[in-house]
Amino acid sequence: MYRAPIEEIAFTLKQVCGLGDIQASERHADLGDDLVEAILNEAGRFAAEEIAPMNVVGDRKGTIFADGKVKAAPGWRDLYHNWIEGGWNGLTATPDYGGQGLPMMLSAAALEMWNSGSMAFALGPTLTIGAVEALEKHASDALKETYLAKLISGEWMGTMNLTEPQAGSDLNALTAKAERAEDGSYRISGQKIFITYGEHDLTDNIIHLVLARLPDAPAGTRGISLFLVPKFLVNADGSLGAHNDVRCAGVEHKLGIHASPTCTMVFGDEGGATGYLIGEENRGLACMFTMMNNARLAVGIQGLGIAERAYQEALSYALERKQGRAPGDSGPAMSPIARHPDIKRNLLAMKTRAQAARVLCFACAHAIDMSHIAETEEDRKFWSERAGLLTPLAKALPTDFGVEAASIGVQIHGGMGFIEETGAAQYLRDARIAPIYEGTNGIQAIDLVTRKLPLSGGEHIKAFLGELAGIIEGVAASNLPELGDMAIHLTEALRDLEEATAWIMTAQAEGRMADALAGATPYLRLAGLTFAGVLLAKGAAASDDGHKAARDQRILLARTYTFTLLKEVAGLKADVTGSSEVILAFDPEALAS
Amino acid sequence: MYRAPIEEIAFTLKQVCGLGDIQASERHADLGDDLVEAILNEAGRFAAEEIAPMNVVGDRKGTIFADGKVKAAPGWRDLYHNWIEGGWNGLTATPDYGGQGLPMMLSAAALEMWNSGSMAFALGPTLTIGAVEALEKHASDALKETYLAKLISGEWMGTMNLTEPQAGSDLNALTAKAERAEDGSYRISGQKIFITYGEHDLTDNIIHLVLARLPDAPAGTRGISLFLVPKFLVNADGSLGAHNDVRCAGVEHKLGIHASPTCTMVFGDEGGATGYLIGEENRGLACMFTMMNNARLAVGIQGLGIAERAYQEALSYALERKQGRAPGDSGPAMSPIARHPDIKRNLLAMKTRAQAARVLCFACAHAIDMSHIAETEEDRKFWSERAGLLTPLAKALPTDFGVEAASIGVQIHGGMGFIEETGAAQYLRDARIAPIYEGTNGIQAIDLVTRKLPLSGGEHIKAFLGELAGIIEGVAASNLPELGDMAIHLTEALRDLEEATAWIMTAQAEGRMADALAGATPYLRLAGLTFAGVLLAKGAAASDDGHKAARDQRILLARTYTFTLLKEVAGLKADVTGSSEVILAFDPEALAS
Repeated sequence: MYRAPIEEIAFTLKQVCGLGDIQASERHADLGDDLVEAILNEAGRFAAEEIAPMNVVGDRKGTIFADGKVKAAPGWRDLYHNWIEGGWNGLTATPDYGGQGLPMMLSAAALEMWNSGSMAFALGPTLTIGAVEALEKHASDALKETYLAKLISGEWMGTMNLTEPQAGSDLNALTAKAERAEDGSYRISGQKIFITYGEHDLTDNIIHLVLARLPDAPAGTRGISLFLVPKFLVNADGSLGAHNDVRCAGVEHKLGIHASPTCTMVFGDEGGATGYLIGEENRGLACMFTMMNNARLAVGIQGLGIAERAYQEALSYALERKQGRAPGDSGPAMSPIARHPDIKRNLLAMKTRAQAARVLCFACAHAIDMSHIAETEEDRKFWSERAGLLTPLAKALPTDFGVEAASIGVQIHGGMGFIEETGAAQYLRDARIAPIYEGTNGIQAIDLVTRKLPLSGGEHIKAFLGELAGIIEGVAASNLPELGDMAIHLTEALRDLEEATAWIMTAQAEGRMADALAGATPYLRLAGLTFAGVLLAKGAAASDDGHKAARDQRILLARTYTFTLLKEVAGLKADVTGSSEVILAFDPEALAS
Repeated sequence: MYRAPIEEIAFTLKQVCGLGDIQASERHADLGDDLVEAILNEAGRFAAEEIAPMNVVGDRKGTIFADGKVKAAPGWRDLYHNWIEGGWNGLTATPDYGGQGLPMMLSAAALEMWNSGSMAFALGPTLTIGAVEALEKHASDALKETYLAKLISGEWMGTMNLTEPQAGSDLNALTAKAERAEDGSYRISGQKIFITYGEHDLTDNIIHLVLARLPDAPAGTRGISLFLVPKFLVNADGSLGAHNDVRCAGVEHKLGIHASPTCTMVFGDEGGATGYLIGEENRGLACMFTMMNNARLAVGIQGLGIAERAYQEALSYALERKQGRAPGDSGPAMSPIARHPDIKRNLLAMKTRAQAARVLCFACAHAIDMSHIAETEEDRKFWSERAGLLTPLAKALPTDFGVEAASIGVQIHGGMGFIEETGAAQYLRDARIAPIYEGTNGIQAIDLVTRKLPLSGGEHIKAFLGELAGIIEGVAASNLPELGDMAIHLTEALRDLEEATAWIMTAQAEGRMADALAGATPYLRLAGLTFAGVLLAKGAAASDDGHKAARDQRILLARTYTFTLLKEVAGLKADVTGSSEVILAFDPEALAS
């Protein structure tokens, strides 16, 4: 069972992550609190009542591949159609083609709940929305006319085709081919792997966005173009025509997200699939980045959704399961394990991770929205940089938290957690992909260190750290005794973050790139833990909106956080600034010989 | 592929964990270095050549349950019989019944390799050996005569039947019944769950050790007796008689260790299974603890085995897989990912965990051996207490490390890590049970805090901490420049461990048991991390035995450890000493209402 945490989500959007800034903009002038609440409530209801019960079915039945076709798990086609009939697919898409034009923050909140319902389900539309964004921004009007409305409604789904066997993280190595045809279209050929929802029977057509190289393209990533390749060609009247020269050659047998078909796609076996250029030739990577950046946030939200769902299930189990006698309990009866201090610790470890993931994801969504509504070039630049800075934090830390929370959830279940019938293990299996896809968390860390810290000549991160200090000052100035020493703990953590940041930036400035890269992963965790801690404290210091129990709970979580996750920070700083010499001295190739 | 790390194992046994103390004893006077080496080499060969290749078969095929019978995975019966023909089952068992009487340290070393080969395989004999230990120590001569030789040779396997649906960690709640029969035997009835290797076709007979209550037994754990219940009754001449009144009602569908059948066992459906009392009536728990303590170390070794195997596979993948260009590499070719600093960090994170797990497990085995060979009552007490202190550390930390290392291994594989064909995911699935069974790691932490810290009125832990300080002094006195500041880092960690220990013991002394319990889990990790760090430093400071490359590698690992895992210690101390108030204030039951 899943209960959508509407109150926490709404509070985090409004009081912690700045939804008010978005509501105050001209573009979202219609988005009153009532509408926000109505949307959250209805999304929460759908996630809890419709999606959540189908999660286990999707896991056990998975998808079935035969003769190039993929059959969705039982009930999943109906689920998907109910979902798109609710208008959920086009939440952020342009109203010009039937979308609702809502801000990313609301979409992030809904996406959390879809993922709590079922990560394998929420994943498909995430890809479609990525395709919508790429088309909105880069496609010709003709392509938009033909494809956009149906992708926005969800009548058709979209995919992203980047990976090839030899080209995963390194798109330089990409070899899929595109040749110009006489009619202005292209003939696409090549094999793509790990294509999420590459083939299925949820929709009548599937719109593949495919990276490929023209024959005369420069080497490397500057020679990659993006093409739209529909499964079925579309006639002038919008009806479906012939099957394109693309087929699914198989689906992977995966650790988790069994209901999400991960396909090997073969393009051009019979001479070349018909594709249409999106944007300009050889500029495909820029288009793809449009999809990828938001997709990274969307994957972060998967970690959030799993952490919350796993927490709820573990809590429910811990309240029912009785073993031993907790301190303070008397009489012959066994205590619910939720009363044992160690189980309380574990439950809090899960819940603090869920809430920390939430503030990170919503803060990133806020920055993306701000970059969209910015009215000056300066503001646009600032918020684009902020979104850029927060994206690796919002992708990596929440996905790590998702795995950690799910694993703690298994532990709380004891032996039952290892039995698949319980469902606890599914969260761990599903969650494990999120730190990997859309750029491994190691690549997020490299992105943070090599591309984001240097933004505006290092001034952006400096300003960001200054803002955190300001929030901490505000928490301290609130003088609330119930917060304890929270501001002191945060000030220490921020100092560690400042020192680690200076160390990494100095290494880069001095050309010691390998030193900076060796510390990238602990640096990312350190930065994300500190930022999340500051936001949790901001929420704890906020007024109670008349709901004291909820506020007490927020304070308890924020205080727990300062004694647990935040306490990793000092060690991470020591690691960033101390370990590069030994790490770089490690020579794995010498071991192999 | 698995390559047994014989040199590291031998070095750790001898130079770090004190195998020489055991070899110097009268009981093991025959155990020269040559024999040790021969045993390790042959065990390593069997693990690498015979067991390791069957691991994936066991995972994919699992066991098949039908009509109360369990069929092992293809090839597993032959594998088991080859293994027992090598005499491996009786390594530590008494020579009186065909065992080899070798010390636990050697058995631990071999068990690491069996588990690296296949955790699901190594698990079965672990249970048999537990049964052997219980019989050796507590059974009547008649029972020994009938059962011991065949359990020691491995011709029959043994099981442990504790858990019932309502009684997992809490044996007070156990309800299986035993009634006295006229012939001196007993009639056993009740249902047991999660019985590892409870039914299978590897051996012709299976010897169940079953906890049950007599009708007139006192309530609680003082009313539990231990019975031997053979699957087939044994005739006076040793041949097999009638099928006993015990059957397997099903096997669990688990996250991992698919080749290990986890059975629901039903005793006495047809009037009562014939059982024979082991030890005294109502004293079954003491007998069971004999099995459980060594089983806890054996489970810790599972974590070690998985960490080492997962590391080797990830290393091998990272050397083959090419993506991007590592710092310092030039030319158009992609670099093996093993050259990227972040991957080096991840490989080291796995390897430091494997080596830290190894020193913890072997040190615990050493203490057990010392308690067996002790010649004075005082020594016996000291080493029994030391084994007691180290057992929760050797169970919990290595099993957590196993999960952590396997998860990092999945990450190093990128998208391929999530695909079951790669095998990386199996290590994670298999490893995940080890922190749960034989007493969850939370229960280990409670055991450490409530039973082990108070040993000898708190003097034992005090002496232990003093010994650690002595080893660190030795490392510092070695004055080896290549060790860097290792002794300083360790001294800081030890101070944190001392402070955390004092905090917990004070809480207990003042009757604030809930405070102590709230910090038990981070305290265990803190203690284990510090102890392992000290032992790794001891190894790093030791001479190179003429093999410089191996010594350089040990120093690199120990130095990496001091900047990474050891740096968790300060945060853990802050957690232990700071978080209990907020953790105990958490009221999960209020959330449910």
